[in-house]
Amino acid sequence: MTTTQLSEQIRLKKSFLCVGLDVDLEKIPSHLMQEEDALFAFAKAIIDATHDLCVAYKPNTAFFEAYGVKGWKSLEKTINYLNENYPNHFTIADAKRGDIGNTSSRYAKAFFEDLNFNSVTIAPYMGKDSVEPFLEFEGKFAILLALTSNAGAFDFQTLTTDGQPLYQQVLKTASQYKNANRLMYVVGATKAEYLTEIRQIVPDSFLLVPGVGAQGGNLKEVLEHGANDQVGLLVNSSRGIIYASNGKDFASAARAKAMEMQQQMNHLLNLIF
Amino acid sequence: MTTTQLSEQIRLKKSFLCVGLDVDLEKIPSHLMQEEDALFAFAKAIIDATHDLCVAYKPNTAFFEAYGVKGWKSLEKTINYLNENYPNHFTIADAKRGDIGNTSSRYAKAFFEDLNFNSVTIAPYMGKDSVEPFLEFEGKFAILLALTSNAGAFDFQTLTTDGQPLYQQVLKTASQYKNANRLMYVVGATKAEYLTEIRQIVPDSFLLVPGVGAQGGNLKEVLEHGANDQVGLLVNSSRGIIYASNGKDFASAARAKAMEMQQQMNHLLNLIF
Repeated sequence: MTTTQLSEQIRLKKSFLCVGLDVDLEKIPSHLMQEEDALFAFAKAIIDATHDLCVAYKPNTAFFEAYGVKGWKSLEKTINYLNENYPNHFTIADAKRGDIGNTSSRYAKAFFEDLNFNSVTIAPYMGKDSVEPFLEFEGKFAILLALTSNAGAFDFQTLTTDGQPLYQQVLKTASQYKNANRLMYVVGATKAEYLTEIRQIVPDSFLLVPGVGAQGGNLKEVLEHGANDQVGLLVNSSRGIIYASNGKDFASAARAKAMEMQQQMNHLLNLIF
Repeated sequence: MTTTQLSEQIRLKKSFLCVGLDVDLEKIPSHLMQEEDALFAFAKAIIDATHDLCVAYKPNTAFFEAYGVKGWKSLEKTINYLNENYPNHFTIADAKRGDIGNTSSRYAKAFFEDLNFNSVTIAPYMGKDSVEPFLEFEGKFAILLALTSNAGAFDFQTLTTDGQPLYQQVLKTASQYKNANRLMYVVGATKAEYLTEIRQIVPDSFLLVPGVGAQGGNLKEVLEHGANDQVGLLVNSSRGIIYASNGKDFASAARAKAMEMQQQMNHLLNLIF
């Protein structure tokens, strides 16, 4: 999938919503626990109920890995289901990987070839040779953590290095890596005021924005400060959508929440674009 | 496993060697490819051939994940084999995880409960709430990336923040986290001269030192600069040991390389302790 195709989907659907699949056996509706593969059954129902309202899905690999081989099988089924039924959706393995060169190559192979995701989230701490192996795959993207939406983001990401916050240094350095056109960046919405500066550093890149909703970010601010002329944003919502209800109506409740966000997005896109 | 028990093993075996299990189907001896589970067969043979010479094993999860569900099964078999047959060895899931709180909790559950590793490597970029969930498990350890041994380490880790390199800030901040006594740190041996300062910041913690051998670090320098009075070091070697030969003699060749390192360690421990 290309970024042009992703931008087309955003225009077509009037949505830049990414639904995060944080599939948690402790939170999913109890009646699903009778299913042979409850994780997949839940993910599938959420996907079927929301696909026309979003342009991306982001399975959080930790929630699958927590169940070992069984969980990994559920992850495989989920990405295969997406690729077979909704090939126009952008898929993100939220795995936050990063290691030395030959190891990063293996992670890239795991997510891009074995599982056939469009993208994977990665961590910047180990630098160039930990990132570049993810950028060698045509039509695939690495989404680099820049400024995250959690409280701990202020421990290191906002420290001043050479007169600028570390996350800006990360953006500047990474945007010079080989095949940096295959990079996107995670930028938390809890700090929408930072988005203006971030856009100056990476004007053309897609930004994946968590933290709208559950973590307090404001959609309008994000769009005003963070959009480029192709929109260039994916706003993620996980728990706010997928756990809207834990009863038998969970899928329609998730749909209602996703629709609420899509309608806000539609409205804002009409205002701004 | 406690650090006291690990220190006892180091004294007993006159070794602070960790064998890194970077099990790569493209590099393992071709005759093993006929095995039903070649990854596990290789890992098992290496473990059996080296267990009396080392105190720790570090399966690199990327190399297992690259083969999907099958690879995850091999990882499970490997850690189960270690726990059943060599319960006195310290086990490290080299996974370099890190995410927001509830996601980190899931990763911790995956590696500490589902797979029953003693420890897991984690990345610091997302700060406190990404690290602390790993420190909630008694008898388990998180090994935080501080200064890695790859070229990309100089992209961000050595940037100056508040008058000190970022990796020192990471050590200082992390050592204040809740249950920080369950933290160890990754410190690359290619920069042994930095170890003296690192020891001042975290005098009592174990350091996991990659990069001796293949990446050019010097064992004597590491011990001189990095040891505390309990040794407090695990020096990792992966490729230099496990791929010493790709013929039918691979296990005995790995043993010979491990013994070379153990003998150097024994000699140095006698000199210094």
